[in-house]
Amino acid sequence: MEIVHPTLLLNEAVCKQNIARMAQKAQKHSLQFWPHFKTHQSAKVGEWFREYGVEKITVSSLQMARYFHEAGWKRIHVAFPFNVRAIEGVENLAGTCQLSLNVVNVEQIEALASQKSPVDVFMEIDTGYGRTGINPKDTEHLENLISKIHQASNLVFKGFYCHNGHNYHASNTAEILRNHAITQSAFKSLKQTFTEAICVAGDTPGCSLANDFNEIDVMSPGNFAFYDVMQSELGSCYVDQIAVSMLCPVIDKSESKKSVLVHGGGVHFSKDHLVTDNGVIYGRLKSIYQKGQNVASVGNSRLTSLSQEHGILSCSSKDFDSIQIGDLVEIYPVHSCLTAACMGQYQLDDGRRVGMMDGLCTN
Amino acid sequence: MEIVHPTLLLNEAVCKQNIARMAQKAQKHSLQFWPHFKTHQSAKVGEWFREYGVEKITVSSLQMARYFHEAGWKRIHVAFPFNVRAIEGVENLAGTCQLSLNVVNVEQIEALASQKSPVDVFMEIDTGYGRTGINPKDTEHLENLISKIHQASNLVFKGFYCHNGHNYHASNTAEILRNHAITQSAFKSLKQTFTEAICVAGDTPGCSLANDFNEIDVMSPGNFAFYDVMQSELGSCYVDQIAVSMLCPVIDKSESKKSVLVHGGGVHFSKDHLVTDNGVIYGRLKSIYQKGQNVASVGNSRLTSLSQEHGILSCSSKDFDSIQIGDLVEIYPVHSCLTAACMGQYQLDDGRRVGMMDGLCTN
Repeated sequence: MEIVHPTLLLNEAVCKQNIARMAQKAQKHSLQFWPHFKTHQSAKVGEWFREYGVEKITVSSLQMARYFHEAGWKRIHVAFPFNVRAIEGVENLAGTCQLSLNVVNVEQIEALASQKSPVDVFMEIDTGYGRTGINPKDTEHLENLISKIHQASNLVFKGFYCHNGHNYHASNTAEILRNHAITQSAFKSLKQTFTEAICVAGDTPGCSLANDFNEIDVMSPGNFAFYDVMQSELGSCYVDQIAVSMLCPVIDKSESKKSVLVHGGGVHFSKDHLVTDNGVIYGRLKSIYQKGQNVASVGNSRLTSLSQEHGILSCSSKDFDSIQIGDLVEIYPVHSCLTAACMGQYQLDDGRRVGMMDGLCTN
Repeated sequence: MEIVHPTLLLNEAVCKQNIARMAQKAQKHSLQFWPHFKTHQSAKVGEWFREYGVEKITVSSLQMARYFHEAGWKRIHVAFPFNVRAIEGVENLAGTCQLSLNVVNVEQIEALASQKSPVDVFMEIDTGYGRTGINPKDTEHLENLISKIHQASNLVFKGFYCHNGHNYHASNTAEILRNHAITQSAFKSLKQTFTEAICVAGDTPGCSLANDFNEIDVMSPGNFAFYDVMQSELGSCYVDQIAVSMLCPVIDKSESKKSVLVHGGGVHFSKDHLVTDNGVIYGRLKSIYQKGQNVASVGNSRLTSLSQEHGILSCSSKDFDSIQIGDLVEIYPVHSCLTAACMGQYQLDDGRRVGMMDGLCTN
C-alpha cells in the first residue's frame, strides 16, 4: 500500500536480532531476563520474546500489566512505585497473575497489606538517578519497610530494583559503566544484610554496555528491542541496530536553508530531543524513498525542529539535492518509546500493521 | 467514579467562555472566524462552536479534515501545506466538502490541478516564523504561483494564510503585537497587488492580545479554546482561563527535595516544556484533591521533570506539607494541544468522557 501519512516502520528482523542478543547476554551471565515491554507496548511484539525462554516481563503501569496479562503473560513485574489508588486493579490482577510490584514507602505496603491477593514486593533503590527509590545506605529505613512487608501475610519481600536513568545523561560510556558498578556495589552491600534478596537492574545503556553483572540477578531493559538515536549517541547500539523509523512525506524544500519540510511533528515523534554539538535534534535521516527506490542518507541530515504536525529536516547538501517534494524520508527517532506511544501502531516490512495497547484512558 | 490513573479534565464552562470570548472578538472586528480544531481534535467539543455561528473550521491534516467532515462540518480549511501524496484523500473529500488548502510550491499546485475536484487555494506566507511559507516581498514568485492556480479550471485562488508561530518564542507582549503588525503590513501590501485576496491570521497569542485587525479578514486560532501554561506565561490568557488540567495520583514524597513523585509522565503530558527563570517546567500545580476536598495550590509548585510515566512536582513548602501519598494533584499542562493528543480523551466535570479523533495511523 502506498504510504500517504507519517508511518512508523518496525524492522522485524532487526528487532528480533536485538532481542536475541540481549537474551543471549542474560544467559551468558546467568541472569534472569525480565524484558521491559513499555517500549513496544504491543502484544504481537511481545510474542517475539517467547522463543528466548522469557516467562516474566516488566511493565510501567498497572494498565499495561492488564493489557499484557490479557495477551497471555502470567508473570509480570510493574517497575513503577505502586499507586495506592490502584489497589482494586492489583486485587483483580493478582488473583490470576503472578504480580510483583515496586514500593518505596510505608503507605504502599499498608495499602497492599489491606487486600488479600498475594503480591511479591521489590524495594526500589536509588544509586544516583534521583527520580525515585530509597538510598541503599539507609539500611535502617529499608529494614523498617521490609519488616512491614514480612508482617503482611499476603506479601513476599523479593529483593531490590534499581533503574539507572541518569545513564541517559552520561557524557561517555565510561560514566555509564561507573554508574553500573556503583549499583553493583550497592547490591553487594544489601545482600550482606538481606541475604535472600533478588537484585534487578533495568536500564538499556548499562545492560548493553556492561560485561560484568556480578551481584545482579535479573536484567530488565526495555528500549534495547528498538533502540533509537539517543542510544546510538550513548554508544549502547550501532545505528543499524535501530529497529524503528518514521516515514514522513516531503512537503517543501528551502534552498537557502538547505532544509526540507516534512509531515511529521510532535504528535508523531513526541518532543523528546537530544542536545548535540550541532544543536537540538529530534531524529536522524536514514534514507530517502523515491520512485520505488530507497537511497541511503549521505551526511549528517537531522530533524532540528518540530511543531504539532510539521518537522524541519536540516540536510547535508547531497541529501538536500537528492530529496524531492513528494518523496518519503525515513527518520530514526531520538526516543523510540515515546514515538511508539504517540503513534499507537507499527507497520512491518511486508506492510502488515501491528497494534499496541491503547490504555491510557482506561481506569 | 474514582480516579485511579492520570486523567485529563476538561472544564466545559471555562472552554465555552474561551470560545465565546474569541467569537465575540472576531465579530467585533468584523472578521470571519475559522477556529482551528487541532487543539481539541474532538467532534463533541467542535459542537460547542456551532452556537457562535461558526460554519468553517481549520484543521492541521487531511486525516483531521476527514474526521471532522464525518462529524458534520462541510467547510474545512487545512492549514498545513498540501501533501502531494494525499491527492486521493483530497479527491474523496473535495467532492462532498468545501475544502481549502494551503500551498507553498508549484508541485502542490500541479498535483491539485491534476485531479478534477474543486479546491480553494491559499498561499501560505511567512512574515518571520521561518517554518514554512513564501516571503510576501517575493511578489514575482507569488505571481507565478498564483497564475498557475488561475490556469487550473478546478482551483480557485482565495488569498493568503499566515501563522506567526514565532510568537511562542516572544519575550513579551509588545513583541507579539509587533509581529502581528508586521503581518498586517504584509497583508496590506499583498492586497494592493492581489485585490480580491482574503487574508487569514492564525495564532492564539496574536488573536488573544491584538486589538487591531485591519487587513485581516479571517482569524483561525486554535489553542485559545483550552489555553495552557505557555499561553498564560505569554500573557494570552489568565491562569483561570486554562480549560484543561491533568489529575495525577501522588505516589511518593521526598522531604529533602520538597518534591512529589506523581504518576504522570511524557506519555501523558508530552515532553513539551517551558524554560523559565526557575528552570524547565512541564506544568503548574492547580490544586490538590484529598478526602473529597479540593485545595488550591499555594505558591509556585511546578512539574520539573518527566520520564515515560513518572513526573516530579517541585513544591512550595505549603503545598508539600499539604500533599499526601494517595492524593490527586491537578496540573495545568504547558502545551494543551500535545497533552490532548497524548491522552486521546477528556473527562468533563460531571464525569462524562469525551472522545477525540484517533486517526494518526489511518492512511
